[in-house]
Amino acid sequence: MGHTKPLILVTNDDGITAPGIRMLISIMNEIGDVCVVAPDAPQSGMGHAITVNDTLYCDKVVVDKDAPQVEYSCSGTPVDCVKLAVNEILGRKPDLCVSGINHGSNSSINVIYSGTMSAAVEAGTMGIPSIGFSLLDYSLDADFNPIRSFVKTIALESLRNGMPSGVVLNVNFPKLPKNDIKGMKVCRQAKAHWIENFDQRVNPLGRKYYWLTGEFINEDKGEDTDEWALKNGYISVVPVQFDLTAHHAIHDINSWNL
Amino acid sequence: MGHTKPLILVTNDDGITAPGIRMLISIMNEIGDVCVVAPDAPQSGMGHAITVNDTLYCDKVVVDKDAPQVEYSCSGTPVDCVKLAVNEILGRKPDLCVSGINHGSNSSINVIYSGTMSAAVEAGTMGIPSIGFSLLDYSLDADFNPIRSFVKTIALESLRNGMPSGVVLNVNFPKLPKNDIKGMKVCRQAKAHWIENFDQRVNPLGRKYYWLTGEFINEDKGEDTDEWALKNGYISVVPVQFDLTAHHAIHDINSWNL
Repeated sequence: MGHTKPLILVTNDDGITAPGIRMLISIMNEIGDVCVVAPDAPQSGMGHAITVNDTLYCDKVVVDKDAPQVEYSCSGTPVDCVKLAVNEILGRKPDLCVSGINHGSNSSINVIYSGTMSAAVEAGTMGIPSIGFSLLDYSLDADFNPIRSFVKTIALESLRNGMPSGVVLNVNFPKLPKNDIKGMKVCRQAKAHWIENFDQRVNPLGRKYYWLTGEFINEDKGEDTDEWALKNGYISVVPVQFDLTAHHAIHDINSWNL
Repeated sequence: MGHTKPLILVTNDDGITAPGIRMLISIMNEIGDVCVVAPDAPQSGMGHAITVNDTLYCDKVVVDKDAPQVEYSCSGTPVDCVKLAVNEILGRKPDLCVSGINHGSNSSINVIYSGTMSAAVEAGTMGIPSIGFSLLDYSLDADFNPIRSFVKTIALESLRNGMPSGVVLNVNFPKLPKNDIKGMKVCRQAKAHWIENFDQRVNPLGRKYYWLTGEFINEDKGEDTDEWALKNGYISVVPVQFDLTAHHAIHDINSWNL
């Protein structure tokens, strides 16, 4: 690599000034040379969105003048940030990409809606070892201190072992004091879904509109799932793949009259 | 079900007036009772985005006054459309959800960036048999006539057989005259990725900005992939899952010092 220290790309979907990414940057500065490329505003729920019909701004900024990292604030989505970082800013693949720490859960089916995880997946498609971190606390005042050492351990272990091919990690932390966290569990994604309850309102001009609200339904009773781990005081570590092929279903569908 | 004809939800990501969805509606009218809930403007590249911090409008519209379907135009993303359709408009699960026909490919890794496929996946998470259709022609003047009968066959076979649990279909059509299409192939997603080449420009105020452009790299030589099928004159049918767990990697990661 020609580097003594690993090059680490940090991004998120809550925006470059969110407390979660500031904590993640601080942890990564203990491990390697850090470059931050993150959205200039919150991008929650953006999934794997990319900016195809609009311009992208990406400007060098100083958020914390006493810290060593280089930072760029980007007008696009988390996936745009990763694409710009690797292809325009770094000019090479970083040794690790970390995304988050998200304010709120990305466990179970939430992985598919998550901008945090999409950034990690995007880096994964480029062959970069990559991890998304999320804390089960939506508050902007969330306390990330209890999980600091765990984040560092996972990042170091990813660098030491390398990531299995075609895989990125989805790591979720329970909202617990440090001493109550029982450890980490490698899990599968629980089978769950959302039932939406739209809040219907009328705007000042008399036009009907909706707010999306919803209820998370976990129909999965397995004790090897991320939901089980989080409910029972563990940190969930789910290996996530971006080959979405349902290989087991190919045989079934071959029996159709197509 | 209490219905003699199946209830079919139609959506897309190119917007409610795009030729691709108009063709899909016309085909579905031959099969069942059609309800359209689609974005009021193009949403390409939106991936699995949802609208969490903004209002949603969803208004009944008449796009084609001589056609039997009911239609709603929505200010949100394709995933928002599906959530609104099932929970607010239909008040029950449709018997089938079809998305598209997309103007452009959603084969291989493009599945993760695709609003068309995200709508299908969203319906899939609710247990609705669901299919995304895409034609390998980005033009607004694309000719959908050659694929008309194939779309109908796949929809009918999905209704007849039911969809394997946890699976939706990603169907891509080559841009070919009907007689040159060799048939359908059930495939796996090819291993591929994008290398981005950002087009860097300067705005009238002197600020640097970027346009995203990219090159699709298919590193997969397999003859059981969607890319192979499409290059060789076949329609690709990939069963797609939304359990993203890389089950094979759980053992590997359990050997780390976590």
